Amino acid sequence: MKPEVLLSRIRVVLCRPSHPGNIGAAARAMKTMGLSDLRLVNPKQFPDPEADTRATGAVDLLDNAKITATLAEALADSVFAVAVSARQRDLGPAVGTPRETMARLLEAAQQGVVALVFGNETMGLSNEEVLQCQAAVTIPTNPDFSSLNLGAAVQVLCYECRMAAFSGAAPLSSQGATPFVSPPATHDEIEGLYGHLETLMTDTGFFNPQQPGRLMPKLRRLFGRAGLEKDEINILRGILASTQVRTGHGRKG
Amino acid sequence: MKPEVLLSRIRVVLCRPSHPGNIGAAARAMKTMGLSDLRLVNPKQFPDPEADTRATGAVDLLDNAKITATLAEALADSVFAVAVSARQRDLGPAVGTPRETMARLLEAAQQGVVALVFGNETMGLSNEEVLQCQAAVTIPTNPDFSSLNLGAAVQVLCYECRMAAFSGAAPLSSQGATPFVSPPATHDEIEGLYGHLETLMTDTGFFNPQQPGRLMPKLRRLFGRAGLEKDEINILRGILASTQVRTGHGRKG
Repeated sequence: MKPEVLLSRIRVVLCRPSHPGNIGAAARAMKTMGLSDLRLVNPKQFPDPEADTRATGAVDLLDNAKITATLAEALADSVFAVAVSARQRDLGPAVGTPRETMARLLEAAQQGVVALVFGNETMGLSNEEVLQCQAAVTIPTNPDFSSLNLGAAVQVLCYECRMAAFSGAAPLSSQGATPFVSPPATHDEIEGLYGHLETLMTDTGFFNPQQPGRLMPKLRRLFGRAGLEKDEINILRGILASTQVRTGHGRKG
Repeated sequence: MKPEVLLSRIRVVLCRPSHPGNIGAAARAMKTMGLSDLRLVNPKQFPDPEADTRATGAVDLLDNAKITATLAEALADSVFAVAVSARQRDLGPAVGTPRETMARLLEAAQQGVVALVFGNETMGLSNEEVLQCQAAVTIPTNPDFSSLNLGAAVQVLCYECRMAAFSGAAPLSSQGATPFVSPPATHDEIEGLYGHLETLMTDTGFFNPQQPGRLMPKLRRLFGRAGLEKDEINILRGILASTQVRTGHGRKG
């Protein structure tokens, strides 16, 4: 199944959100990662201009968002649901990491609609809500400041969903321009550079062939790390040659 | 080194942010993941009540945030910087995924301060800013709606930093024999090399500052790929200086 189809099967459910701005931020976060199905359980204030503002180009998700009175209604047709919870609940499903849990979510999405269930900004999810889910996830945070914004939590988990969906592919290479590359330099060309460098350094007195020390190995190590291209060899040798013209050390022919 | 210490060495740099609310959201995102070092390059409006509101319990990061006029100042003492960019730049460093690039960032943090560099909400980073970084990262997004909020982008990358810091994976440097290393060069030392190169090339006539073309960006790309060490800066500047003594172009003092 195509990654885009799997992502379209992930429903984000926000339970009793207090701030309309967070609903908008959640919509924007979802859309940037290719998700589109948003459900709101008993939102305090919605629709709201603040939600539209924070959603920017993702207002279509707000327009299509379904509102329900209970979590059970929002999950009715789903085949797998993950509770986003800051802590392990007494009887709740074992809390996993985002990476492993989103991989499970994507796996389940092969079968049908799946859901990511977020709680209220202050209170989180109730135990009764967590128990309606088949899995739970916690985003690891700084123990001294674990106050993750609701929109930010949606962003992190939707990002992990996208990473999991595309894990087989290499989508980055198709974004933007191909990085600039000139063909790699050949062994001979690279040795030519080292020879040129050694001659110049000997001429200026920087390098003493009688006491070579580790100078040339260090330069080889530096340029070896870079992986030189043809074009770069030409530039470097051009610089070297230009200093030799001035010093009169340039070779003839 | 403890994960908490590594995370404390990651500096988040926001270049020319337009909206103070985003600065606050970035601070909150950082603190939830254990980061604390925030720098602002030429912010449009800061301090601002909207920044404080969005930061909630992370106002201390705003209070301690240093403001600079240029990216170079913000990066002065850093040993590795990653540009957050929506696309591959022509001569910029190759764009990696968040996971692999944050692993590199954490590896480099063993050596000193490292930086994550974010651009303006609308314009992103300039090419000149990207070229001051040794690596680049793109957060994969929906190609039809890639409009990631600045605070959300900070959240995703800080989350990946925390995951990398606590991954427990043996750092590359402990695998096999310890390779020869001198401490990494700082941003200031690397810029000093570029300045020296440019002066020398101008003196010899190889470089025309009136028609700079792509020469300096290409050299930045080459040495950026290598990741220069202090020792190597000294060698390269020694070579440059030795040619200047002969040509009489060496500076006094």
